[in-house]
Amino acid sequence: MDHRYVYAPGAPIRSGIPEHGRIPKYYAVKARLSLLVDELGEGDLLPTERDLALRYEVSRETVRQALRELLLEGRLRRQGRGTVVAGPKLEQPLSLASYTEGVRRQGRRPGRSLVGLDRFPCPESLAPEIGVDPGEPVWHLERVLLADDERVGLESTYVSVGRVPELDTEFDPDSSFYSYLRDRLSISFGDADERIETVLATPREALLIGTPPALPMLLMHRLSRDTDGQPLERVRTLFRGDRFSFTTRLGA
Amino acid sequence: MDHRYVYAPGAPIRSGIPEHGRIPKYYAVKARLSLLVDELGEGDLLPTERDLALRYEVSRETVRQALRELLLEGRLRRQGRGTVVAGPKLEQPLSLASYTEGVRRQGRRPGRSLVGLDRFPCPESLAPEIGVDPGEPVWHLERVLLADDERVGLESTYVSVGRVPELDTEFDPDSSFYSYLRDRLSISFGDADERIETVLATPREALLIGTPPALPMLLMHRLSRDTDGQPLERVRTLFRGDRFSFTTRLGA
Repeated sequence: MDHRYVYAPGAPIRSGIPEHGRIPKYYAVKARLSLLVDELGEGDLLPTERDLALRYEVSRETVRQALRELLLEGRLRRQGRGTVVAGPKLEQPLSLASYTEGVRRQGRRPGRSLVGLDRFPCPESLAPEIGVDPGEPVWHLERVLLADDERVGLESTYVSVGRVPELDTEFDPDSSFYSYLRDRLSISFGDADERIETVLATPREALLIGTPPALPMLLMHRLSRDTDGQPLERVRTLFRGDRFSFTTRLGA
Repeated sequence: MDHRYVYAPGAPIRSGIPEHGRIPKYYAVKARLSLLVDELGEGDLLPTERDLALRYEVSRETVRQALRELLLEGRLRRQGRGTVVAGPKLEQPLSLASYTEGVRRQGRRPGRSLVGLDRFPCPESLAPEIGVDPGEPVWHLERVLLADDERVGLESTYVSVGRVPELDTEFDPDSSFYSYLRDRLSISFGDADERIETVLATPREALLIGTPPALPMLLMHRLSRDTDGQPLERVRTLFRGDRFSFTTRLGA
């Protein structure tokens, strides 16, 4: 049995320990805290910074740095004035299914909260992506994504007003846009191109999602087409990096 | 024409500007620097911190914080003692194709540099993932991923020694493991499950890849099976978050 492997299955061997040079002090504390988190269960309260500093014989600033990284990684979360062990990340399947369906599949309750619905003349760069001429009216629907009432992401949808003329009056912004397109307008998705990257939350995004500023986020860009191959929507979805992962099944 | 949209196509409108409250000073500098980066071309040198502080009438620490985020996001990169405009992120397609093929498709030269090849008894948790009994010997192949000699990632592959007995003598660690399996052992990939998340680089990983510590990374876990559906390998690949994005085409 290789004990270097036991503590973190799937992690690289000797994870975190530079082969040359010293281990940063905060990182040694983080490694010990990480073992402590493994022993505790989801929702369990961590000792205070003060107690941890005494236990590990380091300064409170060193403890804070270790806690900060574990918070950014989603292994811990703040609750009231304390710090508790976080649950596993939500796994969002990469598929044409909507956010709503992805979250439901994991037994969580999906929700959306409207930030704004704007209508503006389509700029040059966006026009071919949603299949309109520059200057034609376009909707920008912006919503905070919820899972069990927790704010987990922020979604911007751009779609032609010509295609969805009654969006401002007919559509309930707390519901699934994809269900609306399908059930009210008989528009079905054919395919989509997606691009995923990691970015830092802007101050505005952090405020809307309720995360610390500069939290690493997963950003998904989607360009989708209907079953006739016509461009349909451009979507920009920001998911909390500490709360989400994406999964996919690849075939040959 | 909506000018809020013009500067950052696809970005949320009023990106970065909280609806309530003040704009953090560093973020206002970052927004102006971002426009400057757009005007310059790839590889162009940025003015010094000192010049930028004078230009924007802020402290050098404020300029540094703005630069730090643009560096983390991969819009700028260090070159010697200066800071230059970075090229676009590499787009790695989510497919069974190897890293080698993905990088080649973008006209970059892929490379790998061996960190280590270890052989150890398979721990309990890994055994079903690679189709062996616990305690049977397993290889751990760890390599730094290169694109045009730039270090861009770190890959750990776990595979059963029974399956690939001559890995330590027959295989050139600078070459594609997938080509080796196919050409020398007639093993072909059938399908794979992948999971993607964002994590912070550990000090050891940062040292190996040559990034600042705590740079947000894209982490990909892959479990692949051969064409008979037998488990084949477990792979953990860390990609620089400032240099990579993943792309995929979704069908209905």
